[in-house]
Amino acid sequence: MTTPREAGFAMPAEWGPHAGCWMIWPERADNWRLGAKPAQAAFAAVASAIARYEPVTMMVSAGQFENARALLPDAVRVVEVSTNDSWARDVGCTFLLGPDGALGGVDWPFNAWGGLKNGLYFPWDLDDQVAAKMLGIERARRFRAPLVVEGGAIHVDGEGTVLVAEQCVLNNNRNEGVTRQEMECVLKDYLGVSHVVWVGQGVPGDETDGHIDNLACFVKPGVVLLSWCDDPADPHYAVSRNAEARLLGARDAKGRALVVERMPMPTPMFYTAEEAAGVDATASGMNRRAGERMAASYVNFYIANGAIIAPCFGQEGFGVATDAAAREVLARLFPERDIVMVPAREILLGGGNIHCITQQQAGG
Amino acid sequence: MTTPREAGFAMPAEWGPHAGCWMIWPERADNWRLGAKPAQAAFAAVASAIARYEPVTMMVSAGQFENARALLPDAVRVVEVSTNDSWARDVGCTFLLGPDGALGGVDWPFNAWGGLKNGLYFPWDLDDQVAAKMLGIERARRFRAPLVVEGGAIHVDGEGTVLVAEQCVLNNNRNEGVTRQEMECVLKDYLGVSHVVWVGQGVPGDETDGHIDNLACFVKPGVVLLSWCDDPADPHYAVSRNAEARLLGARDAKGRALVVERMPMPTPMFYTAEEAAGVDATASGMNRRAGERMAASYVNFYIANGAIIAPCFGQEGFGVATDAAAREVLARLFPERDIVMVPAREILLGGGNIHCITQQQAGG
Repeated sequence: MTTPREAGFAMPAEWGPHAGCWMIWPERADNWRLGAKPAQAAFAAVASAIARYEPVTMMVSAGQFENARALLPDAVRVVEVSTNDSWARDVGCTFLLGPDGALGGVDWPFNAWGGLKNGLYFPWDLDDQVAAKMLGIERARRFRAPLVVEGGAIHVDGEGTVLVAEQCVLNNNRNEGVTRQEMECVLKDYLGVSHVVWVGQGVPGDETDGHIDNLACFVKPGVVLLSWCDDPADPHYAVSRNAEARLLGARDAKGRALVVERMPMPTPMFYTAEEAAGVDATASGMNRRAGERMAASYVNFYIANGAIIAPCFGQEGFGVATDAAAREVLARLFPERDIVMVPAREILLGGGNIHCITQQQAGG
Repeated sequence: MTTPREAGFAMPAEWGPHAGCWMIWPERADNWRLGAKPAQAAFAAVASAIARYEPVTMMVSAGQFENARALLPDAVRVVEVSTNDSWARDVGCTFLLGPDGALGGVDWPFNAWGGLKNGLYFPWDLDDQVAAKMLGIERARRFRAPLVVEGGAIHVDGEGTVLVAEQCVLNNNRNEGVTRQEMECVLKDYLGVSHVVWVGQGVPGDETDGHIDNLACFVKPGVVLLSWCDDPADPHYAVSRNAEARLLGARDAKGRALVVERMPMPTPMFYTAEEAAGVDATASGMNRRAGERMAASYVNFYIANGAIIAPCFGQEGFGVATDAAAREVLARLFPERDIVMVPAREILLGGGNIHCITQQQAGG
């Protein structure tokens, strides 16, 4: 088995040029309230926002094909791909570029964030086929990885560094007994990087076991944006301080010390009784009870060609102050890009956010 | 609604350069015997033969995705597309080329060869979505036609002429009450042709109500190859004579008289009791009884880049003589192409042949 690194492939930074963005149409009624109709509207709004900056492909089941086609702008390409849920970041391929700009991708094994040990649903067979289907449509070279990793568990700087959280990528429910050294080897071989930066825990309550993309991301080489909490009573207070200390003690692949930028957390958000009541009862691992706190974060945004597509949560006066603060941080860190904030509470209700439901395809 | 002709699009001849070929993986057990396994092997052999000459895309349901991937060569692209059966010629789009080589396609409404009036199965909703899905994957311009027509019901010469059979395209079970003039208008507008050549009946027993692609095809401008029968006791005797007379009395779009080449029919073939017993019982219109004659024809071949992919029926000594005669005709008419004959009885058992299960994508 040739690895991407051996073949000269690597994952570019998200701020590099994109050929487009891939998403998956939500539909499962045991995760998305009211038959997924509010989520479909929210996903359509994200797709529409991104489509103003780069081509968007929406993957849709046969049963929802006509409905998705009707609700999406003409510019969005709709292709039939069956899935178990709607997280293109995690089940989609990680696109790579190789010699002469060749397109490739990592097909990570997927086990619904934990398999039979507290994974979020069963089965996950269709999700595990998504990466191969994407690469097939694009006639791109496929590299099937030997370990379970989700796209939301990695962030690269495009200059040889990948950022990950121990809680997630070393979790026994992904790859039982895997060592840090084995995981580093696979990350280096399949992402084409030379150095791994580790933090400990992800955002408390994140049902992915601490995906990095909800906690922190590179905004350019040498600079990490970290979801930050100033309330000592909040469990994220210790997590964000610990992550900052780890990041400030690390070096990237080029030997640079990292600069940490702080992104304020949104005002804490909880499932309402009405929201929880709209979700089908299920024996799965998904937790959609009234009063449950959601793992909200403003760093869970998507970098499109020329724009940042970021979540906002403000509604009826609630959350507006943190939305405005987040916009200011993004505008300062990405001065050359439009900052487009899209209402994301309906996405958050399903367990993720804008970065989780998108997957960039590198290319010119 | 802009028509292809208004937009400068037209269907090139099948012998023009192809970007590739599209097929659909067979699986329905009420049409294909033994759970479609023999048919899958036959389709895979056709795909493999074509893939030596041009790229092949196989459309496959989610349930058969892994199996198709395993049985097809790596060079064949496998994409998920749900269907009701496996006739890419009839349910696929008809690819067109437009200004500056732009790719487009006709999305013909499809009603399973007759809808509720002796159509072959119900429902046909997934089949009717196939053309749009193909065009979506290719990001090609889609022209939804206003009348039901199947791809197997048309053959063009690439120089302004389309060849059709009255029995099929004027059948009330496709477009009730449509006139010849209305049909000619739609054929001209959607195929970008200026002249329609009509024959009467198709091959007797053809359950498509006489698709032209089982009876006759252009082999180059001005020359039509006709499936020919010399046995006065065979119902095809009168049909082939009538078609020849009609063709010899016609002119093409350039005003040329047509030359008719005769292709001998295969030795008559019938469903065996074993073959019929392998098909699930169903209330559909498909007729798979022991002793039923199949509508076999050697003109039901596919023109690939550099090759003719044609059916042969010889097995255990049976049919070998007609196979050899067919090969000679093809070699004489297509001297610059390889003649590749692929065993096709298992395809014929499902009601069609190699041209019916393929769809060329025009392009360089």
